[in-house]
Amino acid sequence: MKFFEDIQVGEVFALGRHSFGADEIKAFATRFDPQLFHVDEDAAARSHFGALCASGWHTAVVWMRLMVDFRRGLLETAQARGEPVAGIGPALGFRELKWLKPVFVGDTIDYASEVVETRHSNSRPGFGLMTIRSTGVNQHGEPVISFLSTTFVERRPAPP
Amino acid sequence: MKFFEDIQVGEVFALGRHSFGADEIKAFATRFDPQLFHVDEDAAARSHFGALCASGWHTAVVWMRLMVDFRRGLLETAQARGEPVAGIGPALGFRELKWLKPVFVGDTIDYASEVVETRHSNSRPGFGLMTIRSTGVNQHGEPVISFLSTTFVERRPAPP
Repeated sequence: MKFFEDIQVGEVFALGRHSFGADEIKAFATRFDPQLFHVDEDAAARSHFGALCASGWHTAVVWMRLMVDFRRGLLETAQARGEPVAGIGPALGFRELKWLKPVFVGDTIDYASEVVETRHSNSRPGFGLMTIRSTGVNQHGEPVISFLSTTFVERRPAPP
Repeated sequence: MKFFEDIQVGEVFALGRHSFGADEIKAFATRFDPQLFHVDEDAAARSHFGALCASGWHTAVVWMRLMVDFRRGLLETAQARGEPVAGIGPALGFRELKWLKPVFVGDTIDYASEVVETRHSNSRPGFGLMTIRSTGVNQHGEPVISFLSTTFVERRPAPP
């Protein structure tokens, strides 16, 4: 991750896309959210969704995976250049998570996170706090998920 | 689920316990949250957590699984008695999700959801809205996760 001082409100992290296949939708839901419309095509066709769709939690955790990969990419790029990299603290939680539309089999969701606020941390002087709004948008341009989260990001060390 | 009219603010749904093993922590995190402190014991020992711990999303989705099982149990009990069962609408999201403590290997988390608000739905006249605060508490009595969510619950049909 960039250092706190280098992060601008309005900056967007493009995290990449994920296409949800029937097998992974059913595998995730069988383990964690076995409601019929997430695990059985015929039952889903008779449900209010009208077709098999992913657990909302599945849509959320794919964001997490893409964010971890995105940060790792930044780390590897910086290391290859011999540049220092900001540490990032644990996420403390999420707010206002909304599942706005179902994610059906074959839908491709494009994930991005936009910086909406930065502020100093009183509890951890070496860090700042970055709040991002993360969204997933389907191939029709419709938002399917949205949430806010706040993370500690390391401040740039003082020059020696 | 009970009908909306039969749900009381303050009512607690005891959802059951789950013990988090090292293999499932690593399997979930390898797929969805491959940060080193969730997938590698040695790296976790050197991290700010000090030991391997579950992804916060893993702690959350286990709640979802236990809630689905709980609702299914209510449904089967009612059906065995020949009683009607209230339908439940899709969850629209959640609010104020907080990960309060890490969940380490071997921790047993006791999940419960308490009804904190009920109100009429303007958009769906046959349903009411139930807001619950869900929590997971470890074997030391420490809350590890907390969040609010709101769901549509069917109203009792008018007598014929």
